[in-house]
Amino acid sequence: MKNNQENTSEQSEPLNLVIEGRNAVNEALKAGRSFDKLFIQDQLSNEGPMKVIIAKAREKGIVVRFESKENMNRRSTGHHHQGVIGYVAAYDYVSIDDILASAEKKGEEPFIVILDGVEDPHNLGAIIRTANICGVHGVVIPKRRACGLTETVVKTSAGAIEYTPVCKVTNITQTIKILQDKGLWIAGADMKGTPMYNVDLKGAMALVIGGEGTGLTKLVRESCDFIAEIPMKGDISSLNASVAGAVVMYEAIRQRNFS
Amino acid sequence: MKNNQENTSEQSEPLNLVIEGRNAVNEALKAGRSFDKLFIQDQLSNEGPMKVIIAKAREKGIVVRFESKENMNRRSTGHHHQGVIGYVAAYDYVSIDDILASAEKKGEEPFIVILDGVEDPHNLGAIIRTANICGVHGVVIPKRRACGLTETVVKTSAGAIEYTPVCKVTNITQTIKILQDKGLWIAGADMKGTPMYNVDLKGAMALVIGGEGTGLTKLVRESCDFIAEIPMKGDISSLNASVAGAVVMYEAIRQRNFS
Repeated sequence: MKNNQENTSEQSEPLNLVIEGRNAVNEALKAGRSFDKLFIQDQLSNEGPMKVIIAKAREKGIVVRFESKENMNRRSTGHHHQGVIGYVAAYDYVSIDDILASAEKKGEEPFIVILDGVEDPHNLGAIIRTANICGVHGVVIPKRRACGLTETVVKTSAGAIEYTPVCKVTNITQTIKILQDKGLWIAGADMKGTPMYNVDLKGAMALVIGGEGTGLTKLVRESCDFIAEIPMKGDISSLNASVAGAVVMYEAIRQRNFS
Repeated sequence: MKNNQENTSEQSEPLNLVIEGRNAVNEALKAGRSFDKLFIQDQLSNEGPMKVIIAKAREKGIVVRFESKENMNRRSTGHHHQGVIGYVAAYDYVSIDDILASAEKKGEEPFIVILDGVEDPHNLGAIIRTANICGVHGVVIPKRRACGLTETVVKTSAGAIEYTPVCKVTNITQTIKILQDKGLWIAGADMKGTPMYNVDLKGAMALVIGGEGTGLTKLVRESCDFIAEIPMKGDISSLNASVAGAVVMYEAIRQRNFS
């Protein structure tokens, strides 16, 4: 169902988000447009102009994926893709330093949300929306195993994306280490931890929230300073990712302001 | 976007949810099928067989709506609607007494969630999912200004609908009075109340959650014993309805089990 939702949204508002064709993609890269992903038709990847596009994209840290002609044709909306289709981010990404600077500018201790692989754009949008309302300074998402800032995310964020910046990183574990070095505590929201009500969620901190159904990946979990568990007593086993994120963010709000 | 999502889902899996044609609808009514809504082509509503269908539907408390031929044709998937299209509930509804009995059977004080007009099926499904995990005994939704138990709701609930029953009532305010008479406290989640952390959410209780963007309706708000406010400090003004519901349910969980 997740995929259906995403595809549907892409079908209904693709025009300003998809760039097709070698020249168009090349120009957009030159102009410094943020791409979420670039798809290249595998049989054409050795041609000269394609090599230039791939090199330029990699230089900018854009995820490049190779697909069959059939898949490319299915992705194409204009049917003139010439072997290359790029998905443009609806919003520009910021750096971790930008997020930390924004907290400092507000005179607040940094409060960051890190998403360890949230792939549903509705969940990403909902988390950005809640993060904004909780005064979070920025949201970190991984380059792979995650959706980018598509139009669906922008809409579901209900305007929050205008205020709450998103940073896209290659390696979540590395980012956690950087933040730890800067004095932030890292709290992972996951099963088999301490009930979140008994974990100290005050001060300079990043909350790590796992993807739909999978929870935190092993390495990320091990990098956290502590694991805050959301108590569950029902018949089914997991909360929606955006709900889990909201519940932990609000526990932090309670500890910071109402205890 | 809400409507798009709903329509999309209806388009992709309509077969077992939509019943079209006079005979089919009539038989389904006789067989006691739960309908969420029945649509009747307005120019045909005075014909004999239609009058029988309308009377039978009203007797069962099903919402009947009249629409133009154009709208009916747009709704129709089989194009043989003969002026009547019914949306069947994917799950059967229970009564308030069923919900109270289920709490009693578990030896627990009743904990109920009342939705004052949640129209997005993804939100309704997400709320049922969280309610289950929080040990809520049942969810109450209004007959009008709300979506029914469509396939989208069932999917978004991630299986919770199998365990957490839903009751559909004509009048939320009346239901609140019934529950108050049975000794439940009614806490409305809304703006301009007491911060939820300072409201007693323990014991026999129903939480009332407002619809998307609108919050609680005036009469419902006035019927509540107290208003629990979710603190917000961001740039945008409101949480997603399913997130707001989750945050209040979890504050109740905290107070009941961790304070």
